[in-house]
Amino acid sequence: MESWRTAVVNADDTHIWVHGYDVTDLMRQAGFVETVFLLHRGRLPNAGERKLLDAVLVGSADHGPGAPSCATARLAASGNRQSVSAAIAAGVLAIGDEHGGAGELCMQLVVDGLAAVAASGGTLEEAARRAVEDARREGRRLPGIGHRSHTTDPRVATLFDLAREAGIAGDGIRFMRALEASAAALIKPLPLNIDGALAAILHDLGFPPRAAKFIFIIGRVAGLTAEVAEEYAREKPMRIKIPVTYDGPAARPLPPQDRKGKQD
Amino acid sequence: MESWRTAVVNADDTHIWVHGYDVTDLMRQAGFVETVFLLHRGRLPNAGERKLLDAVLVGSADHGPGAPSCATARLAASGNRQSVSAAIAAGVLAIGDEHGGAGELCMQLVVDGLAAVAASGGTLEEAARRAVEDARREGRRLPGIGHRSHTTDPRVATLFDLAREAGIAGDGIRFMRALEASAAALIKPLPLNIDGALAAILHDLGFPPRAAKFIFIIGRVAGLTAEVAEEYAREKPMRIKIPVTYDGPAARPLPPQDRKGKQD
Amino acid sequence: MESWRTAVVNADDTHIWVHGYDVTDLMRQAGFVETVFLLHRGRLPNAGERKLLDAVLVGSADHGPGAPSCATARLAASGNRQSVSAAIAAGVLAIGDEHGGAGELCMQLVVDGLAAVAASGGTLEEAARRAVEDARREGRRLPGIGHRSHTTDPRVATLFDLAREAGIAGDGIRFMRALEASAAALIKPLPLNIDGALAAILHDLGFPPRAAKFIFIIGRVAGLTAEVAEEYAREKPMRIKIPVTYDGPAARPLPPQDRKGKQD
Amino acid sequence: MESWRTAVVNADDTHIWVHGYDVTDLMRQAGFVETVFLLHRGRLPNAGERKLLDAVLVGSADHGPGAPSCATARLAASGNRQSVSAAIAAGVLAIGDEHGGAGELCMQLVVDGLAAVAASGGTLEEAARRAVEDARREGRRLPGIGHRSHTTDPRVATLFDLAREAGIAGDGIRFMRALEASAAALIKPLPLNIDGALAAILHDLGFPPRAAKFIFIIGRVAGLTAEVAEEYAREKPMRIKIPVTYDGPAARPLPPQDRKGKQD
Repeated sequence: MESWRTAVVNADDTHIWVHGYDVTDLMRQAGFVETVFLLHRGRLPNAGERKLLDAVLVGSADHGPGAPSCATARLAASGNRQSVSAAIAAGVLAIGDEHGGAGELCMQLVVDGLAAVAASGGTLEEAARRAVEDARREGRRLPGIGHRSHTTDPRVATLFDLAREAGIAGDGIRFMRALEASAAALIKPLPLNIDGALAAILHDLGFPPRAAKFIFIIGRVAGLTAEVAEEYAREKPMRIKIPVTYDGPAARPLPPQDRKGKQD
Repeated sequence: MESWRTAVVNADDTHIWVHGYDVTDLMRQAGFVETVFLLHRGRLPNAGERKLLDAVLVGSADHGPGAPSCATARLAASGNRQSVSAAIAAGVLAIGDEHGGAGELCMQLVVDGLAAVAASGGTLEEAARRAVEDARREGRRLPGIGHRSHTTDPRVATLFDLAREAGIAGDGIRFMRALEASAAALIKPLPLNIDGALAAILHDLGFPPRAAKFIFIIGRVAGLTAEVAEEYAREKPMRIKIPVTYDGPAARPLPPQDRKGKQD
Repeated sequence: MESWRTAVVNADDTHIWVHGYDVTDLMRQAGFVETVFLLHRGRLPNAGERKLLDAVLVGSADHGPGAPSCATARLAASGNRQSVSAAIAAGVLAIGDEHGGAGELCMQLVVDGLAAVAASGGTLEEAARRAVEDARREGRRLPGIGHRSHTTDPRVATLFDLAREAGIAGDGIRFMRALEASAAALIKPLPLNIDGALAAILHDLGFPPRAAKFIFIIGRVAGLTAEVAEEYAREKPMRIKIPVTYDGPAARPLPPQDRKGKQD
Repeated sequence: MESWRTAVVNADDTHIWVHGYDVTDLMRQAGFVETVFLLHRGRLPNAGERKLLDAVLVGSADHGPGAPSCATARLAASGNRQSVSAAIAAGVLAIGDEHGGAGELCMQLVVDGLAAVAASGGTLEEAARRAVEDARREGRRLPGIGHRSHTTDPRVATLFDLAREAGIAGDGIRFMRALEASAAALIKPLPLNIDGALAAILHDLGFPPRAAKFIFIIGRVAGLTAEVAEEYAREKPMRIKIPVTYDGPAARPLPPQDRKGKQD
């Protein structure tokens, strides 16, 4: 088999290097948040960058057992207690564009908006307005706006304040705030959510759109492990009973025609 | 890299063989149930064996959206609609000793019971009684007995009738019926469930204990695909709201000591 | 919590019904392939439909340990032997548009081609030619054509022959054969693969595009269970060594600037 | 449905609390590593505890594409590019007692060894020796010792040095070093590996055995995201060809007996 190539991690008999840095140096003198930054950007963060990424990870970690990812992990743990990996993986699988992953769509909106400004002039605010108009016309939900349980998501202002304090606030935050304002004017007032804020921050930190899902997943897995640990510790297997209403065909006999047809 | 070895499937430029049989012969003259049997036993089933395995797969396919595997698949689909594989895999992950997989534990009970009879004499009924006594003494739940929503699982009698008609009923069925009787006498009357019946049949078909999970999963994946298809077709993403009650520590400020400690 | 609704399976204390049919009737008088058809179409198949779906499932079941789904399942089993569900789910996760799931893209091509014919006239052959021209112009790979290890996929002709014998061959087969011919004329001769044949058959059986992935997964899970069973039975954990070549940054010390920056 | 209870996360319309701490306080004044500690221990770490957990997470993050978890994630990405969650979850599924999860077994050895000392006297060193003797007699592999690619795992000494510097080194480290020494004396010289070191540290930090898998998974998911990102960025789908050797039955015709038997 052809060798697999990688530029991420190298190892020999007695060393491991991450993008060229000895893992023991990273363990001693840096830390996990720096390593996450390094793994995705190929360089170590400065102090402000580290602080922002750290806050994004904390903000993504857990939102309680009712979040789809957490509920999925607990349900899997309810039927399969042989492998915690199975329950955690099930939780990860619930993360997509609809849950936890809308940041990727937001980051793409920012990138596209900036490209439009660069190509045709106009302001970032106008680009955000066009994004809202497009979504309204095509009946699409705008990513990064609205939350099913928060009127104001407390993590958003905190992230934006931290970004300003660290001198990192840039086009990402400006665009998402403009998107929020245009949506309020053209559709209805809806707060930025954690996906939108995470997208703004990660854009201003220089990450590409796909990183939104990666970073959210890293943060959320911490919460998934705690949800699974609590499920094992406090709950019996098979405890969860989902109420179900059947609205399909009434009970009926097998059709003779099909049965005869079957004996080919 | 060293070549991986296999005795299951071979292929060349223009052929695929499963345990030596040309896949096109299997497609034309056999079928999926025969192929499942072949994949796990290395030979094709006779008519009775095929019928029994077929009925086991039908009986495992679906039990509605409230079954942990089905609910897990739907929850994952609720947050991630980019990959049906993700939702189906999440459903598979909920299958373990506690849900759908107790058949493996039952089959091991049968194997151990028969080994005890072979080693020390006595009857299968006595071995089943000892299994019940052991479980009671150690406070373990007996696998294969009891169901959270059925007083009588309709699939059990059907499988055992089919086994008798096909001349396949053997020690597996005898042991599980004895287990049910001893449990009724020593603990309380509880019906055999599908795990117990599947275990009895698969034992009498010559499958090893681990096959119980494999066969259940093959059947259940059919149901998972239908559950996921219906979730996509009828429901909006993020529709599911799990009611949650918090009973942990009250809101509190960060402790100054720990924060100071952090600034190392 | 609001009750979940379903039209697939109903159950009471002593019965289970699939689309209204008693599961014990399905176990006695029908079978697994009929149940798969029923789960996705809401009715039982006739003899010809059943035979075709059966052959599709057999053809999807296994292609040896080198197929990405099978290799992924074996690798997962190599590190985690606590749960066969984990290994099988890992294998399912490797199934997407690129592996095993191209049938969905093919079925969409057929649906779009037929819609174009209905809207603007012309023949199905012309619609297939336009699909090839579009793909060539946009530099996209055509789904359903070409295979990395077969010059002729033996399953294709078998499926199409069976469809003709059963009187089921229709626009799906006609379109995919026209696509193959146009691709040979405009790009290069490449054989239809199993994804393309499965798509043609499922279209002619009346399934919607998404069903291509569902049906492939049901078939493939049978193979995954056999691959995982063999991995457990014949191989040691952690046996697999992937050869890796590192081509990233050379070993380097941590940058002092970043480290200072970190001590905020 | 009955409400699910939790003591981990609470949320209202405008707040989220983790074990009672406002998530915005954690974002501003603490960080991700503190949050991981909090999620599993219910309190914030002091400076030394934080540093050790941070180093454990860095040491677990990535070991290159050849590690089973990383290879599994890449293989899944090779066939399914619709969902990064699918590839990352596949990687998580490869983590078990055999890969990345042996720390749980080590922590149980430590706990059992300490319990034996408490119950029957003797030293920790004698308990470690008995653990080695038991494993040798029963032909079991000792967890936490030996590595397939390192003669000396560089992360081990670093973790133990950091633990001493932070005043955290305790019975966990002492037991694992004694285990290493007894294994060298009674079996053969084999270095402690990252699982063993992680187990020693987490024990001395007060974590229960199951936490070994949870903490390893949190760290490794960071690496999995980087491996998947590189696979998407640098490699084509379906690029991976595993060499396979078939050693099963030779090509053979379908047996007439079985076919006849089938026409029941």
